[in-house]
Amino acid sequence: MFGLEFHAFAFFWLTKGEEVILAAENRIMDCQSAAAKVWSLRRQGLGKSTVLMGGEKKGQMDNQNMAASQHEVAAMALEEISAQVRPSDREAERLAGLRQTHLTKPPGSLGRLEEAGIKLAGAFGVERPAVRKKLIVVVAADHGVVTQGVTSYPQEVTAQMVANFLAGGAAINCMARRAGVDLEIVDAGMVGPLPDHRDLRVVSVRRCSGDITRGPAMTRGEAKACVRAGVAIALEAAEAGADLIGTGDMGIGSTTPSSAITAAVMRRSPSETTGRGTGRDDQELAHKVSCVERALEVNQPDVADGLDVLSKVGGLEIGVLAGLVLGGAFARRAVVLDGFVSGAAALIAHSLCPTVGDYIFAGHLSAEPGHRLVLSHLGLEPLLDLGMRLGEGTGAVLAMGLLEAAAQCLAEMATFAEADVSNREPED
Amino acid sequence: MFGLEFHAFAFFWLTKGEEVILAAENRIMDCQSAAAKVWSLRRQGLGKSTVLMGGEKKGQMDNQNMAASQHEVAAMALEEISAQVRPSDREAERLAGLRQTHLTKPPGSLGRLEEAGIKLAGAFGVERPAVRKKLIVVVAADHGVVTQGVTSYPQEVTAQMVANFLAGGAAINCMARRAGVDLEIVDAGMVGPLPDHRDLRVVSVRRCSGDITRGPAMTRGEAKACVRAGVAIALEAAEAGADLIGTGDMGIGSTTPSSAITAAVMRRSPSETTGRGTGRDDQELAHKVSCVERALEVNQPDVADGLDVLSKVGGLEIGVLAGLVLGGAFARRAVVLDGFVSGAAALIAHSLCPTVGDYIFAGHLSAEPGHRLVLSHLGLEPLLDLGMRLGEGTGAVLAMGLLEAAAQCLAEMATFAEADVSNREPED
Repeated sequence: MFGLEFHAFAFFWLTKGEEVILAAENRIMDCQSAAAKVWSLRRQGLGKSTVLMGGEKKGQMDNQNMAASQHEVAAMALEEISAQVRPSDREAERLAGLRQTHLTKPPGSLGRLEEAGIKLAGAFGVERPAVRKKLIVVVAADHGVVTQGVTSYPQEVTAQMVANFLAGGAAINCMARRAGVDLEIVDAGMVGPLPDHRDLRVVSVRRCSGDITRGPAMTRGEAKACVRAGVAIALEAAEAGADLIGTGDMGIGSTTPSSAITAAVMRRSPSETTGRGTGRDDQELAHKVSCVERALEVNQPDVADGLDVLSKVGGLEIGVLAGLVLGGAFARRAVVLDGFVSGAAALIAHSLCPTVGDYIFAGHLSAEPGHRLVLSHLGLEPLLDLGMRLGEGTGAVLAMGLLEAAAQCLAEMATFAEADVSNREPED
Repeated sequence: MFGLEFHAFAFFWLTKGEEVILAAENRIMDCQSAAAKVWSLRRQGLGKSTVLMGGEKKGQMDNQNMAASQHEVAAMALEEISAQVRPSDREAERLAGLRQTHLTKPPGSLGRLEEAGIKLAGAFGVERPAVRKKLIVVVAADHGVVTQGVTSYPQEVTAQMVANFLAGGAAINCMARRAGVDLEIVDAGMVGPLPDHRDLRVVSVRRCSGDITRGPAMTRGEAKACVRAGVAIALEAAEAGADLIGTGDMGIGSTTPSSAITAAVMRRSPSETTGRGTGRDDQELAHKVSCVERALEVNQPDVADGLDVLSKVGGLEIGVLAGLVLGGAFARRAVVLDGFVSGAAALIAHSLCPTVGDYIFAGHLSAEPGHRLVLSHLGLEPLLDLGMRLGEGTGAVLAMGLLEAAAQCLAEMATFAEADVSNREPED
């Protein structure tokens, strides 16, 4: 379709001891075949290969033409995708841990950056992890529950803020620009009016979730479609070279379904999982808690079934973000979680596939009280704790700088031997 | 001296309502005169002007020729410099705080980044702070107290690590490269053998401090010379456009004098201010505590006199870093503190001039137990808490990314009016 104007290349970066499969340049069919072959090997558990695909566009590019692999994965059932998320590479982690002890610093002196570096090594399947591109995917949607008065912001702010993202004026834009992080803005179902913009990616499942205090947020099929869309975005990002994929969210009313998901999955009382969000006082909070309680009573989500929880008391952007987490883990990239809404999405992904835990990092601790519960459930320690509660991926983008530093120190620091630095005296 | 090869420009950026004094380009004498005039106005408390000076070097540049202002400040007594550190600009802080409420985000949702942005506004004296250059100054020196066996690393590691810094192989190099932060490496008195390197700046006060368990670390004159050298480095950095100046340290044995300074200034027991440093076990720790106790007994520092504390139980790099803090505040730049050794230096600077508190930011909380005490004394909350205890400026360089994000959001985010985003419903 765009073949004449489109130059693509694909190459396959293999860990030590593996076979090089194919390298194709400027021939889109070969590129697709190569990608398909790698994904096929991966599905069989035969390859440790990582796919890098890039496209130099001379005209308008159609990403859908870019990689057959994505179509193939898209054809897989969510259960199949979940089943094929592999645990992180323990041997790479072991080698990275050993390398940390040889680097020119006292053992352990980089604290949690050392653990983060080792986890990145395991995720990427290499002793010395490198971060090429960084991407924040900001997913926006509207929530039917706002008709219950759970927030003091009008619903049209969702679309207005998406327009602000596209114009470069929001906090996430400022932070991403500074940090060299790409942004992808996704409409997962806003009420609108929608900004008409070529950089806005639209996931067409439905416009706005249902009011969860009166019925389900969406059908099970819609929930699956949202998750699938997120998987596709993650695979595309990974193939374009994003090694750190961050989650971002925008949606007036979104902390209400996030509190409901957290209460359901973790079997906690809504009063423990619900915070003020953008609300102002105790009265607003009490009302919000009662809305979460009603949502759980009315919908009776099956707490063991992540898709059921998502469809009953979730949200459209939460579904796409859950898919982003799942797809990032499938592609063996690091997924950097933002705050509470992203955490609720990660709970859904984790419920579908606990192995995603090997690939996710908690960017920060949100000021929303339910977030600490979410992170403890996922076994994650947040990298930052700055009292932030904005969403948009702002906590994730700040943490990416720390993860990149962790990777860079592990990969690039001199060892004692290389730098001719004396190590400490041996222990008695 | 290098006039023929050296192009310099100076311009004066004035806050609203002030007179423009002079702009000179490519004429080094005019540039010097202009700088001298601004510093002179500042000394008289007449100007709110901030000096920006840059140099484009065509050949080797002699920074000492660059600005007469530095020579003038160098001729001032430390007491005079301290007296002329002005409090941060409360009006700029007020305007910045007001601006925060108009930006497209719920009020307070950027948490401590909002406070940091306001503090930067006050330090720089502008409503919308901008960060041009970032610099970490890593100051190295040796400590006579290592002969007491307070650390398991041999003393030559100080010089070996400085060689590692100059070769680009240390943690601070990896982090600074990634973050676009410049490094300046300073020898404030290593035993050696010294690497011979054009990028190493040498402060010639003395080689290695005295063993503080048996006498003073240095004379009062030497302490003053170290602080002055740090002031000069800060002024030069500020004039070259560094808006964030970070402190870094390297020196085998340096946590011992840092514990002694903290115990002295804060009137605490050495057992509260002393941690393991790079040591391994309780026995080593107990020995280190006893060394700190002895240092305080033998030297009896006057706890109300920062220079006395520095000269009796301090270290050469600690003196230079104290000067860096003082000079950064004098030049109205933000000083980003690294960990415990930098904190001890900040205690000295704060003792000389409490107003430095308006200009300092705590990059991170070190794993060294005394650091928390230091920060509470300075009234600072650390931006990061990652269990790091390496020094070198590694905590400061990571925090710079957060401060830059804070400044960028405050300065560049769209307001509700600009982005046509609806603000929350008015309160009843």
